[in-house]
Amino acid sequence: MNTHYQFQTADKLIAGIGVFTELVSHLQKAVPSVERVLIVTQPFVKKLDFYQVMTSSLEKAGLSYEVVTDVEPEPTEANIENIKERVRDSSYDVLIGLGGGSVLDSTKLLSVLLSNTCTIQDILGTDLVKEPGIPTVLIPTTSGTGSEVTPNAIVTFPDKELKIGIVSRHLLPVLVVLDPLLTVSLPKPITAATGMDAFTHSLESFISNKANRFSDMFALESIRLIADGIQTAYHDGSNVEAREKMLIGSTYGGMALTAAGTAAVHAMAYPLGGKFKVTHGVANSMLLPHVMAYNMDAIVDRLAQVADPMGIQLNQGATSQQKAKAVVQKIKEWTAEFSIPQDLTEFGVREDDLEDLAIAAVQVKRLMDNNPKEMTVNDAIQIYKKLLA
Amino acid sequence: MNTHYQFQTADKLIAGIGVFTELVSHLQKAVPSVERVLIVTQPFVKKLDFYQVMTSSLEKAGLSYEVVTDVEPEPTEANIENIKERVRDSSYDVLIGLGGGSVLDSTKLLSVLLSNTCTIQDILGTDLVKEPGIPTVLIPTTSGTGSEVTPNAIVTFPDKELKIGIVSRHLLPVLVVLDPLLTVSLPKPITAATGMDAFTHSLESFISNKANRFSDMFALESIRLIADGIQTAYHDGSNVEAREKMLIGSTYGGMALTAAGTAAVHAMAYPLGGKFKVTHGVANSMLLPHVMAYNMDAIVDRLAQVADPMGIQLNQGATSQQKAKAVVQKIKEWTAEFSIPQDLTEFGVREDDLEDLAIAAVQVKRLMDNNPKEMTVNDAIQIYKKLLA
Repeated sequence: MNTHYQFQTADKLIAGIGVFTELVSHLQKAVPSVERVLIVTQPFVKKLDFYQVMTSSLEKAGLSYEVVTDVEPEPTEANIENIKERVRDSSYDVLIGLGGGSVLDSTKLLSVLLSNTCTIQDILGTDLVKEPGIPTVLIPTTSGTGSEVTPNAIVTFPDKELKIGIVSRHLLPVLVVLDPLLTVSLPKPITAATGMDAFTHSLESFISNKANRFSDMFALESIRLIADGIQTAYHDGSNVEAREKMLIGSTYGGMALTAAGTAAVHAMAYPLGGKFKVTHGVANSMLLPHVMAYNMDAIVDRLAQVADPMGIQLNQGATSQQKAKAVVQKIKEWTAEFSIPQDLTEFGVREDDLEDLAIAAVQVKRLMDNNPKEMTVNDAIQIYKKLLA
Repeated sequence: MNTHYQFQTADKLIAGIGVFTELVSHLQKAVPSVERVLIVTQPFVKKLDFYQVMTSSLEKAGLSYEVVTDVEPEPTEANIENIKERVRDSSYDVLIGLGGGSVLDSTKLLSVLLSNTCTIQDILGTDLVKEPGIPTVLIPTTSGTGSEVTPNAIVTFPDKELKIGIVSRHLLPVLVVLDPLLTVSLPKPITAATGMDAFTHSLESFISNKANRFSDMFALESIRLIADGIQTAYHDGSNVEAREKMLIGSTYGGMALTAAGTAAVHAMAYPLGGKFKVTHGVANSMLLPHVMAYNMDAIVDRLAQVADPMGIQLNQGATSQQKAKAVVQKIKEWTAEFSIPQDLTEFGVREDDLEDLAIAAVQVKRLMDNNPKEMTVNDAIQIYKKLLA
C-alpha cells in the first residue's frame, strides 16, 4: 500500500434515472455566465432521443449551441487538432461532451487546447497544461472508461503506432451527469467491452502498487456494482437498474484509477490500439484474464479479497489461493459469456508482431511501474501469444 | 433511497502519515500565483511542532503569512465578523485553516465573506454565496466534523440561542491535507467526542431519507474504518494506524453527509449547542444511541446492514432485528467506554427547558425531513428526557 496518496475528481456529479433532464439547471449553477455552448458528440448520438431533449432544453433556457460530431473512435492527434482549428475562433462558455470515452477525452482536450492556445504536442505527458480549460460538462453514454472523472485523456498517434496519455487536473469537468437511461440502447458487444473495461480499471487499481485507502474503496464498490450488474445489462439491456449499477460502477472505476493508476493490462492494451486499432475496451477485456493469471502469485491475497464483492460463493474454509483462482476463473467465464474476442489474428496480428508489441508495452513505464509483478519483454510476448488462435 | 442524487467535494485531497510536509508544494500547484497566506487557527495549535514545520516551509518557499488565532470553539457570528473586519484590508491569495471543525468552518466563511464583501446575515441558508471565495486549504487536526470536505459551515447566534448552517459549493477548499500525525496528541475526551461525531455523520447519512449510492459507499466505509479504529485511538492515542483510520473515516463521514444530509440527531444537537454550549461532537454523541433507539422500527434493515462493517459478530442465522439491536447496543457500549457525558444537567439543562429545546429541534426542518421516522415535539422531549439523570 502507498503511504502517501491523493484523490481528485469532478467538481460535481449528479446521478440517477432521468437526471439528464436536469442538465441545464445544474449547468447554469456550475457556470452562471453561460451563454454559448459547444456540444461534442458523434453522428449516431445526434439521432437519439436524449440528444433532442438536451438541445430543446438548451434552447428553452436561451442558450446558443454549436455541435461537433466528427470525433473519431480512439481519436488521433490530427482528428482533435482539426476540430480545434475549426472552432477556435468561436468563444464558448462551456463544452458539453456527450458520448463514450473517445468523445469525453476529446472534449477534455479541446477545453484546454482552446484556452491555452497550445497544441497536443505541447501538453503530452503529466502536468504540462498551464491554464484551466473552458469549463466542461461530461455525460457518458457508455459504462466504460470512467473518463468523466479522470484527469487523463488518451491520444492515438498512427504514424508512431502509439497511444499516449495526457494527465492534468485541468482536464477535470465542472459537472458530470450520470443517467443510466442514456445507456439502455447500447448494443451487446459495446456493453460487454466497455463493462469489462470498467472492471479492468477497478481490478488493476486494486492490485496496483499504488493502491491506497482512497482507491480501494472506489475499486471494491465498483467491482461489487459491476459484478452485480454486468450479466443482466448484457443479456437484458433495457434493465435500467442493472444499467445504473454499471454506470456508477464505471465512474467509481475512473475514481479508483485516478487515485491508484492502472497497470500491465493497460500498458499491453495501448500498443494493440496504436498499431492494430483494437479499441480500448476490447483490448483490456482480452488481456485481463491472462495478465491476472500471470500476476497471480504476486497478488493472491488481494485477488482473494475481490471474491466476496464479486459475489463468488465458496466454502467457509476456502483458502486465499482458492478465492484468487475463483476470481480469475469468473473473469474467464465472463469473457466467454460476453463473446469477448480471444483471437488477435482477427485484428491482423501475427506471431512475428508480438515482439514489437511487447517492447512497446514494457516501455509504458508509467503503468508498468504499478504492476505488482515485473514483466519482461519475453513475459509480455508469452501473454500476447495466448491471444493468438 | 433517493432516485436523483449528487456529490461534490474538495478539489484535491492528499493523505497519509507525514504528508503534511508536502503541503507547500501541493499548495503551489493548487494556487500557482500564491504569495500571501492567512493562517486561521487556535492558540494551542501554534505551540505544536507541526505548526512550526508549516511556517518554516512557507518561509522557505518565500511565501509571506499572517496568523489569526482567535477563532472560538463553536464560533459566533460576532467572532467571525470581528476577524473579517480585522483582516479585510489585507489581500490574501489563500487561507489555510489548521484545526478542528470550528477553525475549518471559520476559514471557509472568511474565504467567501472577504471575496464577496458581504456579511454572514447575507449568506445564511443554502446557495446564497454569489462569488467564489479566496482559495482555502483545510487541514483537520481532529477526526470529527469532516468539515474539510463539506460545503457547509455552522454559525452560533447566542442572542437567538441558535446554530444556523450556511451551505454553498463555494465553501469547498482547493486542497485538503489529511495527516494522522496531526491528531496523535488529541486528548481522550476530544478523541471520543469527535470520533463519535464522525460516526454519527456516517450512520445518519446511511439511514437518511436522502441516502443514495454515493452516500452509502462513503458511509459504510467510514463506519468500517471508525469501528475498526476508535477504541485503539481512544485508549492508545499514539497509535498512528488507528489515528489514520479515524481521520480517513471522518473525512468519508463528511462526504457521506454532503451526499445525503444528516437527520434528527443533528437537529436535536443544534439547540443544545445554541442554548447550553454543548459542543457539537458531545451533543451528537449523547443523542446518537437514543435517537437510533427511537428510529429503530423504521430502519431495522438499514441498521442491520451496519452490523458487519462495525465488526459485530452474530450467529449466521441472526435476524435483521437482532443485528439492528446489536448495532444500537454497541453504540451504547462505546458511549460508556469513552465516558461520553450522559447527563444534560451537567450543562445546566433542567426538565422545564426540554420543551423549548424540542420545539427548536423540530424546527430544523432541513434535517428533520431526512429523518426516517417522524418526530413530534413530544417525541423529542421524551428523547431529551433520557439524558436527564
